[in-house]
Formats: sequence, C-alpha cells, structure tokens
Amino acid sequence: MPDPIEFYFDFSSPYGYLAAQTIDSLGERTGRRVDWRPILLGAVFKETRGEPLLNIPMKGDYARHDLERSARLIGVPFVIPGSFPFMSVAAARAYYWMLDRDPAKAVDLAKTLFREAFGQGRDIDSAAAVTAVCARAGVDAEEVATALNDPGVKQRLREEVDKAIAKGVFGSPLIIVDGETFWGHDRLDQVALWLEQGGW
Amino acid sequence: MPDPIEFYFDFSSPYGYLAAQTIDSLGERTGRRVDWRPILLGAVFKETRGEPLLNIPMKGDYARHDLERSARLIGVPFVIPGSFPFMSVAAARAYYWMLDRDPAKAVDLAKTLFREAFGQGRDIDSAAAVTAVCARAGVDAEEVATALNDPGVKQRLREEVDKAIAKGVFGSPLIIVDGETFWGHDRLDQVALWLEQGGW
Repeated sequence: MPDPIEFYFDFSSPYGYLAAQTIDSLGERTGRRVDWRPILLGAVFKETRGEPLLNIPMKGDYARHDLERSARLIGVPFVIPGSFPFMSVAAARAYYWMLDRDPAKAVDLAKTLFREAFGQGRDIDSAAAVTAVCARAGVDAEEVATALNDPGVKQRLREEVDKAIAKGVFGSPLIIVDGETFWGHDRLDQVALWLEQGGW
Repeated sequence: MPDPIEFYFDFSSPYGYLAAQTIDSLGERTGRRVDWRPILLGAVFKETRGEPLLNIPMKGDYARHDLERSARLIGVPFVIPGSFPFMSVAAARAYYWMLDRDPAKAVDLAKTLFREAFGQGRDIDSAAAVTAVCARAGVDAEEVATALNDPGVKQRLREEVDKAIAKGVFGSPLIIVDGETFWGHDRLDQVALWLEQGGW
C-alpha cells in the first residue's frame, strides 16, 4: 500500500477550502489515500512571521479576487464568512476527536465544516457553532460539546500542530507525498504529476 | 490589436526568472504582445509589509526546493546567485534606458540579465556588473555606465515603480491581462486559459 497524501490545512484557510474540494478525487486518480490533517496557522505564523493573507495590504484584495476566480474555475461556491479571519481551534479539535472514533466520519465532518464556512459563509469559530454543525451531521451534540472541553482532546491538537511544524508544515494547504512538500492550492497540478510520474 | 500581457517582475525574483522563461511563448500562443515591466520589490514591500521570500523561516527552505523542482519541470537551469537577495536597481534602470532606444533589444537584455543571475549564478547587483553584461550583449559599455548614473534614467525607474504600485502590482511575477491580475509563476496556466477562453 503506497503512502497516503498528507493534506495539511487550517479550517480558516480559504485556499485550504479550495484544495479540500478536489484533494480526494486527486487521491482516487492517483491511487492514494488522503490523510486529512488540520493545523493551526496561528502557531505556524509565530515561526514564519506570517499574518493572515487577507489582512495584508494589496495582497489581501488580490487574494479575495483570486479566490473567487479560482473557485469559479473549479465550479464550487465560495464566500468569505462574516467574521474572518476566525479561530479554527474548535473545528480542529472536533476533527481529531472524531478521527479516533471513526476516520471516515471525521473526513465527512471536515468537509461539512469547510462547506459551512466558505461555501455558505457561516461562522464555525466557536465551540457552540462547531457543535451545531456536528449535530446537523448526525453527531451527538452533548458528546461533541464535552469533547471540545476535554484536556486530552486539547492536548491531542497541540501535539498534532507541533508534529506538523516539526515536519516543516508552514502553510495551508500544504501537501506531502513520498517526502515531497508542495505548498498552495496552485500546486495541486504538480502533486498529481509527481504521483503519476513518480517525480521528475 | 489586443492589449498586451503586462509582465511585472523584479530582476532579483527567482519566480520572476521562471516566468520570464515561458512568458513570450505564452504570448505567441495567445496572440498577445508581452510588455516586460521590471519593478523594485523593495518599494512594494514597504506597502505590503513583505520581505524576501528566501529569508523567511521554513518558507525560504521550501521555496529553494520548489524553485529547483519547478525549474526542472520546465527544463531550464536554475541556481541562486552567490549574493542573494540582491539589489536589482541597476538592472531595471538599464532595461528602461534601453526600452526607449530599442524595445526588442531591451527584452533581449532582460532575458540575458535573468539568465546571468539565475541561470548562471552570476552577480548582476552592481552598475559595474550590469554594464559588463550589457557589453557582452553588444551594448556600448561606456554609454550604459553613463546612463546608469543619469538622473533622468533614475527618475524614469522611480516613476515606473510608482505607476506599477498604483496599478496594484505587489509581487513578482505579476501579470495583468485585460484588467485581470494574476500573481505568481504558478498562475501562468490560468493566464493562458483566461486569454484562450476570454475569461470564465
């Protein structure tokens, strides 16, 4: 069984959302499983002196336009949520909590969370909002609410983020295949080519 | 006659170098003239709080790898010059000076300067280095050396950079076609598609 496509993203990253719309079909096309790994860009930015893209003068305006144009090109809805940039810590905790119980359901949840935020423009920044999304996806609301406050779940996410940074993950989306790192929604074509050709 | 492809770049930008290797064939394929417009990213970074990509922790290491990989993919030599990042003001001045005398020769000079820097790893950061490159390209060394110190030539470059920033140019390479802005070497595919389809 070949190694999976490691797909790192932040739930608050609009380019992460775009990549999330096509990464599974890329995996199917290339015969690879996709390993969804949410991270927190806030922790990464401490290492890279980064800041949320849409807040940067000139670049932010461009990115809004580029995101809409790129979403249109791949035929998916796109909207910037009302509160943006937003905290994605609750969403990421919910994901890893679910991952340990039911991996397939965790990926479904990730897709639903992304769709709520950037497909529908709804807030997913609070524990309450994430719990409501989970409940609509058929997960017991009380269990989620409890998990989001669980020190073990919080610790789990911290460890995942630290591990990702130690591996060199510095952005969203960021994809690692067979030890090769590709950064950005606009590198998915190279990821596919790399997998199809076994590198170049 | 359709509008040209406006191709903005900094001579010290490695992704600008990569774009410079294929932008003319993109123009030919889509029936557009390419308007080469060197800028100074240092001036832009004052607006965008930017810094040279290769200096950024984590991102810099990634970019070195990504540049080599992307150069290999399009089959062009690539090397980071010994002194990097470097001042590209002399190179940009030489370009605009030549542009007013012989536009075709100016583009040839731009290609030669890029090739010297990122194809061969030679320094093009000083007036002396740029003059030597011009001389090898058949331009009279004394005339270039005089031009690089000419207040009018200096002023011309300042105006070009200011005009570009006023137009929203904030990176390198940055391409404008029919009022649409595309940033990054990894957007050339979208530029081609935009021109072929007339947008989407």
